[in-house]
Amino acid sequence: VIDPRDYGPDNLPFGIVSDASEGRPRPAVAFGDRVIDLDALVGRKLLDAESLRGAAVLNDFLAAGLDAWRAVRARLQHLVGRAASAEERSGVAACMLARDAVTAHLPVAVGDYVDFYSSIEHATNLGRILRPNAEPLLPNYRHVPIGYHGRSGTVVASGTPIRRPSGQRLPAGASAPEFAPSAMLDVELELGWFAGPGNVLGEPISADDVRSHVFGYVLLNDWSARDIQAWEYQPLGPFLGKSFATSISPWIVTLDALEPFRVAEPARNPQPLPYLTAAESWAYDVELEMLLQTARMRERAQPPLTVSRTNFRAMYWTVAQQLAHVTSNGARIRPGDLFGTGTISGSSQGTQGSFIELTSRGANALSLPDGETRGFLEDGDTVILRGRAVRGDARIGLGHVAGTIVA
Amino acid sequence: VIDPRDYGPDNLPFGIVSDASEGRPRPAVAFGDRVIDLDALVGRKLLDAESLRGAAVLNDFLAAGLDAWRAVRARLQHLVGRAASAEERSGVAACMLARDAVTAHLPVAVGDYVDFYSSIEHATNLGRILRPNAEPLLPNYRHVPIGYHGRSGTVVASGTPIRRPSGQRLPAGASAPEFAPSAMLDVELELGWFAGPGNVLGEPISADDVRSHVFGYVLLNDWSARDIQAWEYQPLGPFLGKSFATSISPWIVTLDALEPFRVAEPARNPQPLPYLTAAESWAYDVELEMLLQTARMRERAQPPLTVSRTNFRAMYWTVAQQLAHVTSNGARIRPGDLFGTGTISGSSQGTQGSFIELTSRGANALSLPDGETRGFLEDGDTVILRGRAVRGDARIGLGHVAGTIVA
Repeated sequence: VIDPRDYGPDNLPFGIVSDASEGRPRPAVAFGDRVIDLDALVGRKLLDAESLRGAAVLNDFLAAGLDAWRAVRARLQHLVGRAASAEERSGVAACMLARDAVTAHLPVAVGDYVDFYSSIEHATNLGRILRPNAEPLLPNYRHVPIGYHGRSGTVVASGTPIRRPSGQRLPAGASAPEFAPSAMLDVELELGWFAGPGNVLGEPISADDVRSHVFGYVLLNDWSARDIQAWEYQPLGPFLGKSFATSISPWIVTLDALEPFRVAEPARNPQPLPYLTAAESWAYDVELEMLLQTARMRERAQPPLTVSRTNFRAMYWTVAQQLAHVTSNGARIRPGDLFGTGTISGSSQGTQGSFIELTSRGANALSLPDGETRGFLEDGDTVILRGRAVRGDARIGLGHVAGTIVA
Repeated sequence: VIDPRDYGPDNLPFGIVSDASEGRPRPAVAFGDRVIDLDALVGRKLLDAESLRGAAVLNDFLAAGLDAWRAVRARLQHLVGRAASAEERSGVAACMLARDAVTAHLPVAVGDYVDFYSSIEHATNLGRILRPNAEPLLPNYRHVPIGYHGRSGTVVASGTPIRRPSGQRLPAGASAPEFAPSAMLDVELELGWFAGPGNVLGEPISADDVRSHVFGYVLLNDWSARDIQAWEYQPLGPFLGKSFATSISPWIVTLDALEPFRVAEPARNPQPLPYLTAAESWAYDVELEMLLQTARMRERAQPPLTVSRTNFRAMYWTVAQQLAHVTSNGARIRPGDLFGTGTISGSSQGTQGSFIELTSRGANALSLPDGETRGFLEDGDTVILRGRAVRGDARIGLGHVAGTIVA
C-alpha cells in the first residue's frame, strides 16, 4: 500500500493505466490515492498534449521533450491547485479514478535497456565475495561507468510473477555443467531512468544536458540468477542469468519532481575525464528499502519484512555521467530507452541491494520469522522495493516494484 | 555490384525499399536485377498478405508466422514462374523496379539484438592473441553458446557511413585512460537471423522449432573498437566498444531459400546438453568473403581487395542451439529480434572474420596495393562483406553489407 502523501501535487508521476469500465490502457498521473486520466483530460480540452491523446505507452510524450513535459506538469499543477476554476475542478474530478481501482501497465515500450554498475559499494562488496584474494575493485572502475546491455523484451510491470529460470550451472567441484532451475535466484535494488527525445547517431550528448534528455525515474529490480550468471559470464558478460525478467515500478517520477532532493556528489579520486564532468551535482537523496514476504509469512498474515535499507545519494556514477558515457561513442538513444543505475548498496550489513551481498553468497542466511531462513529466493517469495525522498514537509514517492517467484 | 543470378526465383529475399518516384518505404523482394514491390502487388490483389500492406518494416510479416511466409513465397514463385497467366505476368511486371533504382532500408524495426560467439576458431584465435600464455578457450565454451546483448538502436542499413567512435582506452604502460578516437577500429564478419512470431515469457523454445521461429538470414558487420572494448569489458562484457554501429545487409534470405545448403554439423566433444540437441542438422554451406577498399584505392579506381574468405559451415553453435539457449531461461523473443552468429573465422591465415585476427592485433599489418598497409581500419576505408551459397546450378546470394569509415 502506498501512502497518498507520496503522490502529492509536487510529484504527479506519469504512468499507463486501465480500469474495469474501460480496458484500454491510457496515460495517467498518480495523485494522492487517485489517478488522473490524461487521455480524458485532453479529450475534455483541459490539457493540450497531442502526444498523450489515445496513447497506450508514453513514448511519444517522452519524445516531445522538456518544454512539453514542463508545460503538461505546470498545467496539471494548476488544475489540481487552488487557482483552478470551478469548471476546471469539476472537469478534473470527472477524469479521476481511484488508484486501487486501476491496473498499472508497463508505462513505456522499452527500446534498448542498459544496466550500469554505478554503486562503488556494490562493486566492492561483490569483488570481495567473488574474488576474496584480490583487489575487490577492477582497475577500470573509477574511470569508466561500467555497464552492459540487457534484454528490453523481458522488462515487465510491477506485479508480474517471476518464473524461476532454468539454465546451465557448474556444480561445486564438477567439470561439466548441469541444466536445472536456478538455485541462487536474487534481486537487484536499482533505480532506472527513461530517455527523452534522444540524439542523432554519431552525436554524443553532454553531461550537462541531463534535463533535456532524461524524462524521469522508476524503481527497478534486475532479477538475477547467480549460478547461471557465474558459469556463463566469461568473456562477454551477463546474459541468461539476467534476461528472464526485469521489473519496474509503474509511475515515472520526473526530474523536476526530484529536483529539490539533489545533493552533493561523493568525492572521487581520480577525477573523471572531462566528458564525464557535469557543472551541476546529480546525486539524489532518495531512501530505498527492500522487503521480503515469504509464502509462509503471507499465509500467516505477517507483513513483509524489511531486509535492507539504503540510499541513492552515494552512487559513484550519476545519471549525467551515464548519459554522457553511453553516447560518448556516438551511440543513439531513443525515447523510451531504459537505463538501470546498477544495484544500490551501502557497505555495512543491512544496506546491500542484493541477496548475494546480504548473505555473502548464501553463506550467512537471513533469519526470518518462525525460523525460516533465506540465502537466496524460494518459490512463493515476494520482494518489494520501495523508494521515497523526504525533506521537511516535502515528499516525493517513487512507489514500489513487487514480484513473486513462481516455480 | 551483386550478380542477378544471386537473386533467382529460389531466393526471393525480403527487404524494404523506396524509390525516387515514391519515397514511401515498402516491402519488396529482390528478383534478379529488379525488385518486386509487394505493397503494390497486394494492392493489385495479386498477393494476399495483409501483414505486408502499407508496411514500412517487415515486423508484422515476421509475426505472421511460417504458414504466412510459405504462402507468400509460394505465391511469388508462381507469379515469376512459367505457370503464371498473362494477366499475372503483366501485373507483376507493373510492380517491378530496377534494383539499382531503389534505396534499400533497414528491413525490420529491431527489438532486442543479441550477438553470439559461435565460431570456435574465432574464440580460439582471440584467446591466443589476448591470453597468449593460457588455454585459448575458456572452460564454458564447449558447453554454453556464449552471447551478449548489443544495442538494437544502432543497427543500421548497409551503406550507412560509420563514424569512428571516441572512447576511453588505456595507452600501453599507462595507469590512467585517455579519451580519444579509437585507433583499433575493426569489423566482425557475421550472419544474423531474425526472429519470427516469438514466444510467451516463461516458455522456452525447443531446438527443433527453428522453422517456426527463425524467418531468415542477413549478413552482419558488428563494427568493433578493440581499444575501447579492451579497457571497458571487465566484468560485464563489451559495451561502447560495440554499440556505435552494427550494419546489416538489406535482403533477408529465408530459411526455405537456404534449405538445400544445409550440411552436417561439425563433431562436438563433449556432447551438448539435451536442450541444445536438435534432431536435424542446422549447419549451412555458405561462402563468405571480406573485401577492403581504401580511400586511395577508390581514388585510383582500384577494385576492393579480398582480405578474407571463409565459410559458415563450421560454426560450433547453430541457429537451433542459439534459439533454444536464448529462450531456455524463459526469455521472450519478439518478431524482429536480431541475433548475430558471432564472428565467422577459420583457423588459417586469410580465413578470419576480423582484423584483430587477420593482423594479430595489428602486429602483422596487411599489405595492400601501392604500399599501403592496414593493422586496423583507417578513415575512408570501405569494408564489404559478401555471402553466397552455391551447389551445381543452385545459387542463393546473401548480397552484401558495406560501410565506409568517416572521421
